[in-house]
Amino acid sequence: MDIKIEMENLARKAKIASRGMANLSSIVKNGALVAMAEALEEKAEDIKSKNTVDLKEARRVGLSSALIDRLTLNDKRIRDMAQGLREIAELPDPIGEIIEERVRPNGLRIRKIRVPLGVIAIIYESRPNVTSDAAGLCLKAGNSTILRGGSEAINSNLIIGKVLQDAAYSSGIPQGAIQLVETTDREAMFHLIKMGESIDVVIPRGGEEMIRSIRANATVPVISHGKGVCHIYVDKDADLEIAERICFNAKVQRPGVCNAMETLLVHKDIAKQFLPRMVRKFEQAKVEIRGDKKTKAIVPQVKDATEEDWSTEYLDLILSVRVVDSLAEAIDHINKYGTMHSEAIVTRDEKVAQRFLNEVDASSVFWNASTRFTDGGEFGMGAEIGISTQKLHARGPMGVRELTSAKFIIFGNGQIRE
Amino acid sequence: MDIKIEMENLARKAKIASRGMANLSSIVKNGALVAMAEALEEKAEDIKSKNTVDLKEARRVGLSSALIDRLTLNDKRIRDMAQGLREIAELPDPIGEIIEERVRPNGLRIRKIRVPLGVIAIIYESRPNVTSDAAGLCLKAGNSTILRGGSEAINSNLIIGKVLQDAAYSSGIPQGAIQLVETTDREAMFHLIKMGESIDVVIPRGGEEMIRSIRANATVPVISHGKGVCHIYVDKDADLEIAERICFNAKVQRPGVCNAMETLLVHKDIAKQFLPRMVRKFEQAKVEIRGDKKTKAIVPQVKDATEEDWSTEYLDLILSVRVVDSLAEAIDHINKYGTMHSEAIVTRDEKVAQRFLNEVDASSVFWNASTRFTDGGEFGMGAEIGISTQKLHARGPMGVRELTSAKFIIFGNGQIRE
Repeated sequence: MDIKIEMENLARKAKIASRGMANLSSIVKNGALVAMAEALEEKAEDIKSKNTVDLKEARRVGLSSALIDRLTLNDKRIRDMAQGLREIAELPDPIGEIIEERVRPNGLRIRKIRVPLGVIAIIYESRPNVTSDAAGLCLKAGNSTILRGGSEAINSNLIIGKVLQDAAYSSGIPQGAIQLVETTDREAMFHLIKMGESIDVVIPRGGEEMIRSIRANATVPVISHGKGVCHIYVDKDADLEIAERICFNAKVQRPGVCNAMETLLVHKDIAKQFLPRMVRKFEQAKVEIRGDKKTKAIVPQVKDATEEDWSTEYLDLILSVRVVDSLAEAIDHINKYGTMHSEAIVTRDEKVAQRFLNEVDASSVFWNASTRFTDGGEFGMGAEIGISTQKLHARGPMGVRELTSAKFIIFGNGQIRE
Repeated sequence: MDIKIEMENLARKAKIASRGMANLSSIVKNGALVAMAEALEEKAEDIKSKNTVDLKEARRVGLSSALIDRLTLNDKRIRDMAQGLREIAELPDPIGEIIEERVRPNGLRIRKIRVPLGVIAIIYESRPNVTSDAAGLCLKAGNSTILRGGSEAINSNLIIGKVLQDAAYSSGIPQGAIQLVETTDREAMFHLIKMGESIDVVIPRGGEEMIRSIRANATVPVISHGKGVCHIYVDKDADLEIAERICFNAKVQRPGVCNAMETLLVHKDIAKQFLPRMVRKFEQAKVEIRGDKKTKAIVPQVKDATEEDWSTEYLDLILSVRVVDSLAEAIDHINKYGTMHSEAIVTRDEKVAQRFLNEVDASSVFWNASTRFTDGGEFGMGAEIGISTQKLHARGPMGVRELTSAKFIIFGNGQIRE
């Protein structure tokens, strides 16, 4: 079948199902989530066997071992997916919540309530667990979902999706509320991101190139999870032990993620005291350091940082380091090179901290804590569908509530406008 | 100068000023708004004289009298603009508001606060009062503004903009926070809507064609005010006197606006009783009626409605009428042909009303009140910058709060992630 027509049909089915989704009770939705979790565990063998097909192909085409690792499903990872769905079931239902309410002088009662967005298309790469996380979060918020995973995980995604569909539909979820794009043709994506009639929002999760291409071509609104060039600024009044612990954690604990530190900024007054110890610790952990001139004057063994380093998301054991003359210089550096993701200051001076928290323009700004905490679970929002680095609609970790919209409901008794 | 470079410079200045804007106190912002209001009134003669230039050109090129009326500034309209700014000064300041706050088991305090969006570009047509409304609302929410009005009002917009800039900058607003696009070349707009580095959101206010073209070409996020094909459904259990009053108001009181009724849906059980009286009243007000077959069987003098009528925003004294067999048919019709703007039901039956309010997918859904109330002022939100018919970020009337974003601020004492 023509891919465009195929995508239109699929989007239309999702749209029709979304009307039923908006009126489901929490009991039905939570029951379905639990049934979906159980189904994943029951079908673990089938899922692993389809995953093997993807893994074989991945090895054949020579995917990197990191990518192959992300693609791999085992019993533990399938249990984690199921556990994720059970946790989503436990979250409060955002739909129907009264956001605000007032009575006007003319007697009109204006109520703003939370409603689903409608149809959400998730376009993602590599990790097949996104299939179940995304389907679960969208379902909880009363939305239909269109899932379009990467070609490298197509067999894994399709079996997971089918297991979830069967369990959901037999638990009272309207037929069509979970749609799987079965073709791996990139054309499918380019059709979906223009179907404003049926699709309310597109959420891309993947590499920079994919997100840029979706942003440039979409006419449907997009919420994107951008890259994270995250900084820690160690102020002259920092507790150096805390600074060392936080910086080490933010760089080394999991370097491949978006909230890991990529650049360390150090105030000149404590640089001589702080940098040698810190750099030694990083070197022991095999972190490659790239410093500016002032850094090299203190720790001459490190490599030279280039202009490009300041805007690079390494996602690896590499760190750029710069010595700054002032708080203002640190803030300017971050606002210039940062990606509005996660930024931190280490200081004992409350005034300095407050200025940093105010003036740094990012989704999440930390005082004396690791940037690694930017996460829906860590923020107490429950599971997340990603971390938004844009300012519109949602900023920072996006949980179930960020997958909703609002609607005004107005109660009158015959009011007309004069 | 090259238009692209000119726009880049202007956007960069707005971005730099936005950092200062984010930290202004309410006192400075409100003082500036009042000074801007006074300046408009003081410079009324200059403004009217520049407006005359636009009006002369408008007559020369043969603009319609309706458009010329919208373009015209007189003392009353200038006072209204000033009054609008004073009302914005009276509104509560949304910036710094704590949206939510929680302490996590590890001691981290997670606070979500309201912050400005940053730089907002407003692209609008015709009415020069948008220049001052938009500048005032954006300023109150701590944003820089880029104002790009239509070529037909260029002289009026530039003098208003300059008066506002002078008053704002001499009241402590950072230089550059209000930017005016001086060229009328359409190329300027196409550059602006791609400048994601400096511009955080684009808000188009104008005709359907302009909005479509911006949506199709923008890479910066867009919030658009779409057209309104608004319906009233008169249920079989309606109080017919209330129904008549509301329907008449929604069609006739101001037919040229987006929240006026364009289609009337009537339940078959009361159509014979309701339609003859209602149609007579509309005919006396010179409303042209276009009915479906069942409507014509009751009021045969009306014209035939075509398929196209159901999705037409007349913005005029024209009304399409359809008799429906059930509540479900009314809801389906609205969800198919409506534009998610404003929809109303007239009924005494609470269950029927509740189903309508739930299932109709629109920004504002009314029970026993006129659709004409969809408006920031009428909803008690203060002045509005438009009415969003999209679901992302803002839905329905957009006031000062809808011109903001959020930011997580996290207070720790050395926490690291395990």
